[in-house]
Amino acid sequence: MAAEHLEDEQVHSVIAEETSQENEHHDEDNRLKPEFLRAVREALDEEDFERVYDLVEPLHPADIADLFELFDEDQRLDLARAIRDLMGVEVIAELNDWVREALIEGLPADVVADIAEQLDTDDAVAMIEDLDREDQQAVLAELDPEDRAAIEAALAYPDESAGRLMSRDFVAVPESMSVGDLIDFLREQRHLPTDFWEVFIVDAMHKPVGTCALSWILRTPRSIPLSDVMKREQTLIPVMMDQEEVALRFQKYALISAAVVDEAGRLVGQITVDDIVHIIQEEAGEDALLLSGAGDGDINEPILLTVRTRLMWLVINLGTAMIAASVVGLFQGAIARLALLAVLMPIVSGMGGNAGTQTLAVAVRALATNQLTSSNTRRMILREFRIALTNGLALGTLIGTGTAIIFGMPMLGLVIAMAMLINNLVAGLVGILVPVTLDRFDIDPAVSSAVFVTTATDTMGFFSFLGLAVLMGLA
Amino acid sequence: MAAEHLEDEQVHSVIAEETSQENEHHDEDNRLKPEFLRAVREALDEEDFERVYDLVEPLHPADIADLFELFDEDQRLDLARAIRDLMGVEVIAELNDWVREALIEGLPADVVADIAEQLDTDDAVAMIEDLDREDQQAVLAELDPEDRAAIEAALAYPDESAGRLMSRDFVAVPESMSVGDLIDFLREQRHLPTDFWEVFIVDAMHKPVGTCALSWILRTPRSIPLSDVMKREQTLIPVMMDQEEVALRFQKYALISAAVVDEAGRLVGQITVDDIVHIIQEEAGEDALLLSGAGDGDINEPILLTVRTRLMWLVINLGTAMIAASVVGLFQGAIARLALLAVLMPIVSGMGGNAGTQTLAVAVRALATNQLTSSNTRRMILREFRIALTNGLALGTLIGTGTAIIFGMPMLGLVIAMAMLINNLVAGLVGILVPVTLDRFDIDPAVSSAVFVTTATDTMGFFSFLGLAVLMGLA
Repeated sequence: MAAEHLEDEQVHSVIAEETSQENEHHDEDNRLKPEFLRAVREALDEEDFERVYDLVEPLHPADIADLFELFDEDQRLDLARAIRDLMGVEVIAELNDWVREALIEGLPADVVADIAEQLDTDDAVAMIEDLDREDQQAVLAELDPEDRAAIEAALAYPDESAGRLMSRDFVAVPESMSVGDLIDFLREQRHLPTDFWEVFIVDAMHKPVGTCALSWILRTPRSIPLSDVMKREQTLIPVMMDQEEVALRFQKYALISAAVVDEAGRLVGQITVDDIVHIIQEEAGEDALLLSGAGDGDINEPILLTVRTRLMWLVINLGTAMIAASVVGLFQGAIARLALLAVLMPIVSGMGGNAGTQTLAVAVRALATNQLTSSNTRRMILREFRIALTNGLALGTLIGTGTAIIFGMPMLGLVIAMAMLINNLVAGLVGILVPVTLDRFDIDPAVSSAVFVTTATDTMGFFSFLGLAVLMGLA
Repeated sequence: MAAEHLEDEQVHSVIAEETSQENEHHDEDNRLKPEFLRAVREALDEEDFERVYDLVEPLHPADIADLFELFDEDQRLDLARAIRDLMGVEVIAELNDWVREALIEGLPADVVADIAEQLDTDDAVAMIEDLDREDQQAVLAELDPEDRAAIEAALAYPDESAGRLMSRDFVAVPESMSVGDLIDFLREQRHLPTDFWEVFIVDAMHKPVGTCALSWILRTPRSIPLSDVMKREQTLIPVMMDQEEVALRFQKYALISAAVVDEAGRLVGQITVDDIVHIIQEEAGEDALLLSGAGDGDINEPILLTVRTRLMWLVINLGTAMIAASVVGLFQGAIARLALLAVLMPIVSGMGGNAGTQTLAVAVRALATNQLTSSNTRRMILREFRIALTNGLALGTLIGTGTAIIFGMPMLGLVIAMAMLINNLVAGLVGILVPVTLDRFDIDPAVSSAVFVTTATDTMGFFSFLGLAVLMGLA
């Protein structure tokens, strides 16, 4: 626990604006300032492309990518034209998929190929994987044979697999090397990957036998053999592994990079954490979107695609709403005699829906992070049951007392209290049993659980409340 | 785009089970197998601690941590006792906060202090920050002065700030060094951090002037000065920055590690991506939980805390449900005359709720990832309005036609179609305006938006449908 410093004579002191959270281009949340965007837009409208260039030039590539996303679609091509020289690979790699696709489709195939050749395999694959087959072929034809082979090989792996994600640029050396040999080798090589954080040690069959973080190499004398420095245990990623699984491994074992191996166990690529961070963010964030039926919720998605995704979900829900309504339909006579029942029934169904959604959100999250497994399912169900019982009793007492007092009908109070308790228990149990069951059948619980849960809480809410009311002779 | 390999004579071929997704201890999703847990539990029940030790010993520390979380609370202390020697710092660091807290509270202060001294500052802080003030003081008193000072300094920063998160162990050297000097320095140093991925270059005031990835150092001849290798632009993290902001910077700029600076711009710590990955996962995943009012949804949280969090949310929702019910109350006369209205009204309100939740989930996500800013708010509102209009027309036509045919009441069909359209528009607009407005006032939209949105869609659903029905003389 000691920081390592070496003080020295005064050198620079440049940091300046970067330390403050707010600066010329960014607000305090690191978002591009509206004033800045307005200035760029005005310059674009006036076709003062030189001014546009001067404004955008100081930005980090990731901020240039943000700028594109914040602009309206029809302004994006103008902007790209104005800052052509700045449209480097880093900007392209950082763009949202939809925004990139639209821009790439607007560019001729040879320009796209030029960009692809500068990118690491994984970024090049990301860039062209969403193009039409025809456009893809046109770009591939422009690539030099080695790059084309690498990209075609990556595209042969399934979407969202480790094979798609990995970079074919990595450093692999034999165990017989010493630290000094390795350093000399690295100094001599020209075609090293842009970034690497560990060196993989392989055998003659090109199977990984160990790994060496660069910091271990740097602190070890030249004469020591790599086999004495390397760690033999390492997390190997099978090339067919789903990216969500890959992300969970990176997180669980705190990996910075990892070796990807083919079916025969041979090293074929590496995955680095910077590519994983996006996936972790996406996979973790998609639960809320999937649960609500908003698809992947990308605000840059073409609007017709968004409408289709959401509408499909809403139509399914319309079906379940009609099932719930048909339960109410059974009690039309009772409602006609005591319209107050229609006033109170949405409270019971709605509160059940809320409680069910809570349990569902927790269960889906725990399943996604491997915290909820078959080994603790029973404990979790019991836990949710106890929570539902407590909350059901509390809410039932509250609404029951209120109803009895406000409407002067103690029996109605008792009925709504009991219905509330029953529906809370239904909500708690369905809220955990549905996602756990779907997961058991390898169906993503985030995608399909909500329909079942709200159907259950709506129908049971109406049925328990109206049924008890009739049973108790209230109407 | 060329992989670097050096073939060599046959060496090992050890990987074996690690390549396959399923192995002795893990199922194909890398979760510990139920059979394995059962074996450990049985050995524990039989007090065969040697067997427990032999079973657990081959596991990775992260898997041992998982094992604790999967066990029931009352078995965890037994397990800890049985595998005392394996309870290393890595296991402690990987444990869920609640599970760790319970375990740590069961251990004497000097044992906790022993563990804390082995940990990096950031992990040590994470371990003791949640302890009672008294327990915390007891542990601090057992630490050696240097470590105590470091941990106390970290605890002085606000919760969830960069200062809490950072490690005080990093490598900082002056610009005057050459690559060779640096390598010699690293080889001589004893107290280097466990992991570091870049070296920070500082001036005499200890302000960062540049940064050097270890791979650049390794591939550069010894004689080259660091000032020629280092990158001068770097993302500096202010010590008071919120961890969510830190995570966004890491993601946006694809950082592996970053320098943390104090108010005067001096280098005081480093943050590495492996600590950020957990935060990205948590922050991205919490939206679904917060939107549902399930708090942080930690399944290891004490149950009474969970009940309190969820109940508070449910009580708030009970209030809004009563507001919506009171709207229905205005139309009791109409419902008594045509009970069919009570059957259909939940469809209108429920579908509005579904559509509102979709828009809300998208807006909350886009705000959290800085994709939705004041620069494109107007475009997003227009986008949501168009989606709501399309979906409202589609759903309205569907339910309107169905109602007209099934019940033979064309006017009732028209009324429900119009109400559906109106409520979809309300849902779309409220679904985006509420989170954007809350965000403008620096209130986390994920926490509080849903109440407003469902209140709006419930009340407007009931009001538009029942109101139109009365207006059209249906009841």
